[in-house]
Amino acid sequence: MSGYDILENVKSVSDLRKLSLDDLEKLCLEIRKKIVSVVSKNGGHLASNLGVIELTVALHKVFNTPLDSIVWDVGHQCYTHKMLTGRYKDIDTIRTSGGISGFTKRTESEFDPFNSGHSSTSISAAYGLARAKSLTGDNSKVVAVIGDGALTGGLAYEGLNNAGRFKKNFIVILNDNKMSISRNVGSMSRYLLAIRTKAVYLKVKNGFEKALTHTPIVGKGIRKALMTSKSILKDLLYKRTLFEDMGFIYYGPYDGHNIKELIDVFTSAKNINRPVLIHIVTKKGKGYEFAEKNPKVFHGISSFNIETGMGIANKQSFSDCFGKAICELAEKDNKICAITAAMKIGTGLLQFAQEHKERFFDVGIAEGHAVTFSGGLSAGGMLPVFAVYSSFLQRGYDQVIHDAAIQNLKLVLSIDRAGIVGEDGETHQGIFDIPLLNPIPNVTVYSPSFYEELKIFLKKSLYETNSVAAIRYPRGGELYQPSDFKVSGKSFDIYGNEEAEVLIVTFGRLFSFACKAKEQLKEKNIDICILKINRIKPLDQNCVKFASSFKKVFFFEESMKCGGIGEHFNYCLTNYKYSGSYILTAINDMFIQHAPVKEILNNLKLDNMGMVEVILKECKN
Amino acid sequence: MSGYDILENVKSVSDLRKLSLDDLEKLCLEIRKKIVSVVSKNGGHLASNLGVIELTVALHKVFNTPLDSIVWDVGHQCYTHKMLTGRYKDIDTIRTSGGISGFTKRTESEFDPFNSGHSSTSISAAYGLARAKSLTGDNSKVVAVIGDGALTGGLAYEGLNNAGRFKKNFIVILNDNKMSISRNVGSMSRYLLAIRTKAVYLKVKNGFEKALTHTPIVGKGIRKALMTSKSILKDLLYKRTLFEDMGFIYYGPYDGHNIKELIDVFTSAKNINRPVLIHIVTKKGKGYEFAEKNPKVFHGISSFNIETGMGIANKQSFSDCFGKAICELAEKDNKICAITAAMKIGTGLLQFAQEHKERFFDVGIAEGHAVTFSGGLSAGGMLPVFAVYSSFLQRGYDQVIHDAAIQNLKLVLSIDRAGIVGEDGETHQGIFDIPLLNPIPNVTVYSPSFYEELKIFLKKSLYETNSVAAIRYPRGGELYQPSDFKVSGKSFDIYGNEEAEVLIVTFGRLFSFACKAKEQLKEKNIDICILKINRIKPLDQNCVKFASSFKKVFFFEESMKCGGIGEHFNYCLTNYKYSGSYILTAINDMFIQHAPVKEILNNLKLDNMGMVEVILKECKN
Repeated sequence: MSGYDILENVKSVSDLRKLSLDDLEKLCLEIRKKIVSVVSKNGGHLASNLGVIELTVALHKVFNTPLDSIVWDVGHQCYTHKMLTGRYKDIDTIRTSGGISGFTKRTESEFDPFNSGHSSTSISAAYGLARAKSLTGDNSKVVAVIGDGALTGGLAYEGLNNAGRFKKNFIVILNDNKMSISRNVGSMSRYLLAIRTKAVYLKVKNGFEKALTHTPIVGKGIRKALMTSKSILKDLLYKRTLFEDMGFIYYGPYDGHNIKELIDVFTSAKNINRPVLIHIVTKKGKGYEFAEKNPKVFHGISSFNIETGMGIANKQSFSDCFGKAICELAEKDNKICAITAAMKIGTGLLQFAQEHKERFFDVGIAEGHAVTFSGGLSAGGMLPVFAVYSSFLQRGYDQVIHDAAIQNLKLVLSIDRAGIVGEDGETHQGIFDIPLLNPIPNVTVYSPSFYEELKIFLKKSLYETNSVAAIRYPRGGELYQPSDFKVSGKSFDIYGNEEAEVLIVTFGRLFSFACKAKEQLKEKNIDICILKINRIKPLDQNCVKFASSFKKVFFFEESMKCGGIGEHFNYCLTNYKYSGSYILTAINDMFIQHAPVKEILNNLKLDNMGMVEVILKECKN
Repeated sequence: MSGYDILENVKSVSDLRKLSLDDLEKLCLEIRKKIVSVVSKNGGHLASNLGVIELTVALHKVFNTPLDSIVWDVGHQCYTHKMLTGRYKDIDTIRTSGGISGFTKRTESEFDPFNSGHSSTSISAAYGLARAKSLTGDNSKVVAVIGDGALTGGLAYEGLNNAGRFKKNFIVILNDNKMSISRNVGSMSRYLLAIRTKAVYLKVKNGFEKALTHTPIVGKGIRKALMTSKSILKDLLYKRTLFEDMGFIYYGPYDGHNIKELIDVFTSAKNINRPVLIHIVTKKGKGYEFAEKNPKVFHGISSFNIETGMGIANKQSFSDCFGKAICELAEKDNKICAITAAMKIGTGLLQFAQEHKERFFDVGIAEGHAVTFSGGLSAGGMLPVFAVYSSFLQRGYDQVIHDAAIQNLKLVLSIDRAGIVGEDGETHQGIFDIPLLNPIPNVTVYSPSFYEELKIFLKKSLYETNSVAAIRYPRGGELYQPSDFKVSGKSFDIYGNEEAEVLIVTFGRLFSFACKAKEQLKEKNIDICILKINRIKPLDQNCVKFASSFKKVFFFEESMKCGGIGEHFNYCLTNYKYSGSYILTAINDMFIQHAPVKEILNNLKLDNMGMVEVILKECKN
């Protein structure tokens, strides 16, 4: 008896479909136990996965997957889905190097029709799939599963707006866990609360519609009469929900942990020749006490002790340091505002939110709005600081250009998780923020290696730069700092023998590795000087000039090579008629799969071992 | 009598506020005449400007601008606004070099609190302004004016979602011109139609609310009772509009050409301590027969004849060529789909929309959704081609990475208006698509110079590349092609004497200028070879190798320098140990103001004169 007796025997979805309701409920308990066990070891998204177990079981019970397609929004809620679709045997490898991904992934399984790591994409992607099926005469179903948090993203609305006019079956399941990532971000969360409170009224209405649906022949005429375009006018008078305004038939709210109820409503919904939105209510962290009590803490976590719910104590991180620094500055300057797109805890803004409630804005998962809104705050004389993960800033690219930089508006971007993030994998690596910001005029970018620098550059960003200023720093904490290196706060630092023949140029946390590489190479009698660039845009031409006197220049960059600082630095060297060797090591036109940060940096030759190897190889030539 | 007797005497908004209702109506007629006259000469956005004359007059009559702030969405509807706010004297210079901009612009006037060129930003920006005012104790008002087209963009929804919970006065005016840029793009447009049809019912309700508002002391308790959070529950039972679900008080629909009605409702709205959405209905092109009949044609236009409504006959453009080419391909391959974000005509997709209705998708002004939806189509086995203006693709940056490239999904981006676009100015220049796409793995980018190449590369993008393939081409038509240059369709072409010492490297339409420069330099006994890159990503290393044998390499790029092909080419040359001169001419860390394309290219030294100048200067050294 492994404790997973049913789960182990669900080798495929067809095994699942044979189970009785009783067994399905037992299966859910086993899955719950397994998820807690796996995440306690590998880290991952716990609370959200515990919330969708019954939902996932019911989906695979009712829908004919993989022919029917389930598109999960922010695929981190896919652990049950993976276990039920042939990946139970691999579940212990989730998020580990070479193991299965913590997100849905097309290359992993035919049950994953679309990859997902960022929020709010499911409706658009699923609707595209549905139109493709319709065009190719494929009658199988498409279901998008989206959380209430993801519904705060504009992309979800664009998807609803388009899908609402589809003439065929298309199902959106709104998984309302009453939470979003943080609470109370906008009207939508209040609106869902109101709907939940009116559950009884809405169910009466649904019962009526379901009755119609269940009598397909008799009811057809009546249903048609209700569904014709004229009924849109009726809706205005006898209106029910916003989703109906958007063209969807609304079913809900249902208890998302009641398998029988879910099976019933899914079975009804799949027979309706129109877009249907099914609103279910779930509990984040369901079934694991610590996660139920602290769903935010157990949203995305590292390994923890199952019995105590305690994680391995984290050291201070750049996020903490940023959070503390901005609080101190905001204490003295009441123009400073902090903005987050549903990442209050992750970006270290908890304290700010408590101490400066009036100047704290959690806008939901809406990075585009966060930037434009910040632009508005700035136009009104405030000093907005938008704290955002590097890979999510990609959602605000146009807004940084159009609503800040073009207008020379003051906006500070505090870019967390810049560089390799590790286990969350390719959708979350912060490797595009540099090529994103580098071409934009009026933008300054700082890349601190240490906490002390972060504080200095935050201050400079607020008070000594114009327009957009960004500070980018990695996930986790600061690394090795040699005792004889003193933080200067200048646009660049030189560390080591300026008369050496070999120069390492780098920035951010790679400086720590460079220092170690320097020490290791010293042992091999290779003398190294290090140029640490602190302000990576605009480049201080004095540091280029300095570099141009070296025989060999090695640039190490934890970012995409194309469009990065290394290529730009090379161009600047060319302008100085540099004739020595220039060897650039950066991420070469590839996405980076999930694995520990350490391992990835090693593979990319961006840690001290890699640097030593690259330099030795070149110096031998 | 100039025909502009009242208009000429409105030197400031205070003059306007003194006018009688009668005179305001006369003023509108004069403004209408003036706008038609100016746009017929300078080109610009005609239909939308003719639609908002009464609205603009009423706004400045009621609101205490510039203390009260009006934020115009897609600022191209600002001509009346500019004339009434001290810029009448400059209106004839609009969109001309050195003249006033065709969009709102902070640097131009204190009446323009926020720049705007792209769609759907107004609510977010205005809400930021409103919060800033609230934080600084400034009680002046903020009004966002947004069109129904812009309401299809997710950013507008993100703004509504956030602003809906504000506790103070905040006004959004929905200018519903029953049109969007193209028709029928999603549920929202159908929903607005339904509201318009139910106008009478809604007005009764408004009358009741207005009565409450007008009796501020007596009505306070009742109004409060209605507005408390509990009334949200009531709304669910006695629901009225979607905007109320989002937390706004809804007023409408009103006749947007009835100044008296507009003045009344604005006066009511500004006294409500909550977010208010005022729905007005206007007619695009109002008052100019040709524009009323063909609002789409008169949306954004070049100069035209007022009497006949006929524009100066346009030559064939790259857009036309693309439209024709994709129709021919789609005829033979029923997997090809065309997607546009409200730019059916501009991108040349009119014919496709007619001939392949089932496979044509206008998703509204929703570029992010367009990409993700295309990803879904692709996952379902179709061949999606998203035709988009370069500067609007910026809205889909994350989606190109996350919903296409990472998943190796087939997506063709047909990027129109790439490079300098001219009179629309800084928000519309297509100068970021290269640094945007260049760092993304799995992306191929073609840059045709001629129609014939566009056709070849479209085919290659569809059938000979994996994942994301982009074809970028400029606004307007093809330029000079020397009779001895034959289109090859290869990744690069060499034109001229391969033994020459000087090489020009370029791509896209600049090749035409390079050919002319070559001829001009020939006269000065400087022999030039030209390397024309056709596939700018990934770079064919053979062309780099070829370039490395030249003594002097001049790279000309109609795009941002930082993160562009020129810097990357330089880096590749470095890898070939190139030791000659490398001179890169591109856009150097600046936004490009409005002016004719020709003039801008000349200023940037990217036309033949510029090329000759750059080369002569260097060859003298």
